[in-house]
Amino acid sequence: MLQAIAQTTLLDDVFTEDPTTNSLEAFVAELTGKPAALLVLSGSMGNQVAIRAHLGAPPNAILCDQRCHIIQYEAGGVASTSGALVQTIVPANKKYITLEEVEANAVLGDNIHSCPTKIIEVENTLNGTIMPLAELRRISKWARERDIIVHMDGARLWEAVAAGAGTLKEFCAEVDSVSLCFSKGLGAPIGSIIVGSEPFIKKARWVRKTLGGALRQAGVVAAPARVAVEETFLGGKLKQSHVTAKRVAKIWQDLGGKTLYPVDTNMVWLDFAANGVVEDKFVTLGDKYGLKLNGARLVIHYQIGDDAVSKLEQVFTEVLKGKKGSSKKRKADVSAEELKLQHVE
Amino acid sequence: MLQAIAQTTLLDDVFTEDPTTNSLEAFVAELTGKPAALLVLSGSMGNQVAIRAHLGAPPNAILCDQRCHIIQYEAGGVASTSGALVQTIVPANKKYITLEEVEANAVLGDNIHSCPTKIIEVENTLNGTIMPLAELRRISKWARERDIIVHMDGARLWEAVAAGAGTLKEFCAEVDSVSLCFSKGLGAPIGSIIVGSEPFIKKARWVRKTLGGALRQAGVVAAPARVAVEETFLGGKLKQSHVTAKRVAKIWQDLGGKTLYPVDTNMVWLDFAANGVVEDKFVTLGDKYGLKLNGARLVIHYQIGDDAVSKLEQVFTEVLKGKKGSSKKRKADVSAEELKLQHVE
Amino acid sequence: MLQAIAQTTLLDDVFTEDPTTNSLEAFVAELTGKPAALLVLSGSMGNQVAIRAHLGAPPNAILCDQRCHIIQYEAGGVASTSGALVQTIVPANKKYITLEEVEANAVLGDNIHSCPTKIIEVENTLNGTIMPLAELRRISKWARERDIIVHMDGARLWEAVAAGAGTLKEFCAEVDSVSLCFSKGLGAPIGSIIVGSEPFIKKARWVRKTLGGALRQAGVVAAPARVAVEETFLGGKLKQSHVTAKRVAKIWQDLGGKTLYPVDTNMVWLDFAANGVVEDKFVTLGDKYGLKLNGARLVIHYQIGDDAVSKLEQVFTEVLKGKKGSSKKRKADVSAEELKLQHVE
Amino acid sequence: MLQAIAQTTLLDDVFTEDPTTNSLEAFVAELTGKPAALLVLSGSMGNQVAIRAHLGAPPNAILCDQRCHIIQYEAGGVASTSGALVQTIVPANKKYITLEEVEANAVLGDNIHSCPTKIIEVENTLNGTIMPLAELRRISKWARERDIIVHMDGARLWEAVAAGAGTLKEFCAEVDSVSLCFSKGLGAPIGSIIVGSEPFIKKARWVRKTLGGALRQAGVVAAPARVAVEETFLGGKLKQSHVTAKRVAKIWQDLGGKTLYPVDTNMVWLDFAANGVVEDKFVTLGDKYGLKLNGARLVIHYQIGDDAVSKLEQVFTEVLKGKKGSSKKRKADVSAEELKLQHVE
Repeated sequence: MLQAIAQTTLLDDVFTEDPTTNSLEAFVAELTGKPAALLVLSGSMGNQVAIRAHLGAPPNAILCDQRCHIIQYEAGGVASTSGALVQTIVPANKKYITLEEVEANAVLGDNIHSCPTKIIEVENTLNGTIMPLAELRRISKWARERDIIVHMDGARLWEAVAAGAGTLKEFCAEVDSVSLCFSKGLGAPIGSIIVGSEPFIKKARWVRKTLGGALRQAGVVAAPARVAVEETFLGGKLKQSHVTAKRVAKIWQDLGGKTLYPVDTNMVWLDFAANGVVEDKFVTLGDKYGLKLNGARLVIHYQIGDDAVSKLEQVFTEVLKGKKGSSKKRKADVSAEELKLQHVE
Repeated sequence: MLQAIAQTTLLDDVFTEDPTTNSLEAFVAELTGKPAALLVLSGSMGNQVAIRAHLGAPPNAILCDQRCHIIQYEAGGVASTSGALVQTIVPANKKYITLEEVEANAVLGDNIHSCPTKIIEVENTLNGTIMPLAELRRISKWARERDIIVHMDGARLWEAVAAGAGTLKEFCAEVDSVSLCFSKGLGAPIGSIIVGSEPFIKKARWVRKTLGGALRQAGVVAAPARVAVEETFLGGKLKQSHVTAKRVAKIWQDLGGKTLYPVDTNMVWLDFAANGVVEDKFVTLGDKYGLKLNGARLVIHYQIGDDAVSKLEQVFTEVLKGKKGSSKKRKADVSAEELKLQHVE
Repeated sequence: MLQAIAQTTLLDDVFTEDPTTNSLEAFVAELTGKPAALLVLSGSMGNQVAIRAHLGAPPNAILCDQRCHIIQYEAGGVASTSGALVQTIVPANKKYITLEEVEANAVLGDNIHSCPTKIIEVENTLNGTIMPLAELRRISKWARERDIIVHMDGARLWEAVAAGAGTLKEFCAEVDSVSLCFSKGLGAPIGSIIVGSEPFIKKARWVRKTLGGALRQAGVVAAPARVAVEETFLGGKLKQSHVTAKRVAKIWQDLGGKTLYPVDTNMVWLDFAANGVVEDKFVTLGDKYGLKLNGARLVIHYQIGDDAVSKLEQVFTEVLKGKKGSSKKRKADVSAEELKLQHVE
Repeated sequence: MLQAIAQTTLLDDVFTEDPTTNSLEAFVAELTGKPAALLVLSGSMGNQVAIRAHLGAPPNAILCDQRCHIIQYEAGGVASTSGALVQTIVPANKKYITLEEVEANAVLGDNIHSCPTKIIEVENTLNGTIMPLAELRRISKWARERDIIVHMDGARLWEAVAAGAGTLKEFCAEVDSVSLCFSKGLGAPIGSIIVGSEPFIKKARWVRKTLGGALRQAGVVAAPARVAVEETFLGGKLKQSHVTAKRVAKIWQDLGGKTLYPVDTNMVWLDFAANGVVEDKFVTLGDKYGLKLNGARLVIHYQIGDDAVSKLEQVFTEVLKGKKGSSKKRKADVSAEELKLQHVE
């Protein structure tokens, strides 16, 4: 990817004159089956630009999972930048919101006391968990019948597709706009993209400028992003991270550990509370074995190899020793590369 | 009150030259024990002005009960006008939020992914239920130690005081700002007021102007508001409405009806779901007996007399007839005035 | 008007149930030839609600006269509440902006660096000066061809109509929305109204709520407003104030005084700089003769009679004595009522 | 620079863990004499983040030159993102705003009708013209005495320093915050930086997150930025562009051409109107001679050599042929590289 940067074009993307950027946007639009695309600098910017571009005069509310990125990790931009009230759902299945929950929590009608739901935001994957295409279709159908916009935070949508939950085009067909990240699992250093209709992307391009998010030499971002999509996503590398994640989860479970969420893709959530594990001790043990661990969320990158998994097993074994529910021991016979666990994004 | 309007001064309050308005502001500041006060046009405007005046540059979040007025009845102004993210609590006791819930839901610290809690908003009474002074003091102490502002939506604080839960000064001493309504239970046609420190009120006066909320001939609003405070609140009339509310609740319960919330003050919440009551039928029965009913929330005004209570009993009896849980009959022997049930505000 | 308040209905306007308010809105809609109307609490609120309701996602700019109310007297609400950039014109004719100036200053096109003009705001009258119907028609035609909204701050549009510059319907036909004040020249204590299309007013009703501007017992405001329109405007009283204004201007000019703007309606702007008059001295002289004067802007109310004019002449004479350009003396033989000069609004 | 990218660290800057980014911020803070610095993605984002971080609750106005970048080239972000009203000055000297103009246009005092000036924004250079240190000091002193913040858009401040108008530290000492660009004259592909006090930068870091402007692998931006400052600025290359700019201006003037602004640094503004030049023809002639010209503004990069200047002379000669004021001919004897003229930023 760094080589791609060194060879990129450096024309001006504010004037849409950079061929590398234009080509990336056309390429992702085609991949997702949407008419147009816009390069942005981060997943947060993708969501903020999309939401701001979708909304008209207030009142505006956005309905979403309580755990989603726009609520938990974007510093409240949805309120301060777009002026939208958040309406949140804690999904009963602990995995994804359902149409029944959307119906129960959406605010409809003409009562001017209320703040009407203008956007339903879904995140896929969320905490590594897939929202099934079938449920998305139910929500989308309901929303379209009520002129409610659906935006997908698809920073990790690549993972759901790699896991076989549906194609990019199938997921994207159900929603008005999607933001997708080139960093995170795909491994590019910077960059995200939003896709949607031509008028929406035209509007988004202007909104991006109001936030200072337009770049001149965007090729520096676009070139490695293209490599990331082609090599990591289309090249099939994500699937490997899912296999490793399931293996890591099995090690933990075999040692008596509990997990918080299903391991649908590349994340393993350890249930520290259920197992009486203290986070600080877990992180310290990681240091001891040469692993940078941030807490209960393990994000498995495709480059993580046997050696790192082996070290992880040692950490698991030591931290679960003598804990309730932990009983088995399992031999570590793996070897290899270093484990890189990403931060919460 | 209308007579008061006819005799009011009509000087310019934008320049703080109207003696009726200035006098009302000084009077309420004194009553509540706060240094300064500002007349506003509605409870919603009081909350919006106070929140906008309290907040600096984003990110800003406001923590409050999920059922509170600023979330449910102000068309999302807290987000669109002040740019604040809402963080909500569904109180486990179904009455009021507790310090433990505040601690569990407030967002503190320096992690720039998050949106930090800058204001805790409490509503007292909320749905007619009192937040006890003791709980408010716990929350307030905790908030002050963390430089978090506490704003009280005290539209109906008069009711909590009338019910003997504490004095106006005791409640107001615990918070940075309070908005109080002259309409609703106090009976003035228009007007609310916010109280707080001198610098806060100075700021709020300017913020009120940015929303188009400054009046020239504010005496027309201030004069009847003064009468409302003096005659209805200081004159002790609110207590009567509480007595009537408890009497109405008892009638309902004696007929086998369930209620949703305790009857602390002047509201009775009928539990239609538990009793299998259809709202439309209830409203229609109200029409039949000459009562304007809006639904399961009954707001009892001090002018509601025996005749209205009697009619209400007839509605109750008829609507609960044959419903699960309803068994007893109770003789109606009351007489008198018309029942006026306010809308949800 | 105060009598009208005492007899008004007091039903709930948030639910559009108050007949006095509904009737006023229908009445003004009919008068102005617009499909719908919405009562608001001040001229500033009328402008803020209308602008916020008109605008979609940013970027949005509003083009207007540098001297207009939304720029000079609304505490920047157009930026803080609606997020609109202001683009201003200093009209070369010192009276009103022209189509040529609009063309030269409007920002059009698709260059995303720029902030496109979405609204042209005209104020009529502005500083008491009429924008002629012919010029408004030129601007309006140009704007419509470019999908640019035109909003009129018609707080004092009544005066332009009273002066014979066109009918209310003729002026209002040229623009998408108008705000008109019941206070100021019309004499009601509180209240303004905005008129426009049905969808616009529906939107504005909701936007008004986001600012805390909805009233329950709006009849208290609507009742005297109706009287103000019927008695003062339709009753022909404004014309008298114009006659008095011209008489006051002539007195000043006969004494050698210069004026800043033409006396089209009820305002006289004394050119203190040109005549070497110190404002403080002018105000002090007003006090001496029993007149409340605020400065160089004299707003003539229809109730101002001969006695007040006579006192004003004495002030003029004394303040211009020995000043450059002042030469003549003129006998004061008038008598009568008190002079009430309104503040800048 | 692209080599620098290939060798950069890739740790997470959202958690301030990337050494390349941290080191760049410390380096620029030291260079400018400010306590702290924050990498941002564009000059527009630097200005937007700084302004949003400086401002508290409305009303807020920002006073600046009518021609400045935040008004003309940032899509109105100052209004839509920070809610600030703009107050503009058209400088009489056509070069930079003066203290006298600031005094005449700033809005001070407590009149709640007005929108008080909270920030004075200066741009240096603006259109390539230097604001002298002496004038900046006068404005800064006046502002500090009134608690008004001064922010400098120093995207091209490097040029003023290279031209000998003062040191970076001298300019930055006069203001509360500065944004500086690594792209434009310095030649990095992406990136800007803001400098200021520790609390301000801490706040700005959070505000940057609300706009989606935080990066994870910021090293990709920071590494070439460091090279740009060291090689282009500290390496003394900017001075060469100024010499070339003066030479280009002289060629134009010797052919009878007029210029719009003084050639203080690296920009030459041709006065097409005065010389009857049609922009389209000028651009077309550029194509004919192999130059990419955008219009009347020529931005001279240090890499522009004799050959490009020679081609430019041919364009000048042809376009001014037969125009009023054009009389002389001058021999082109230069040779060399290609001319790259940047877009308006």
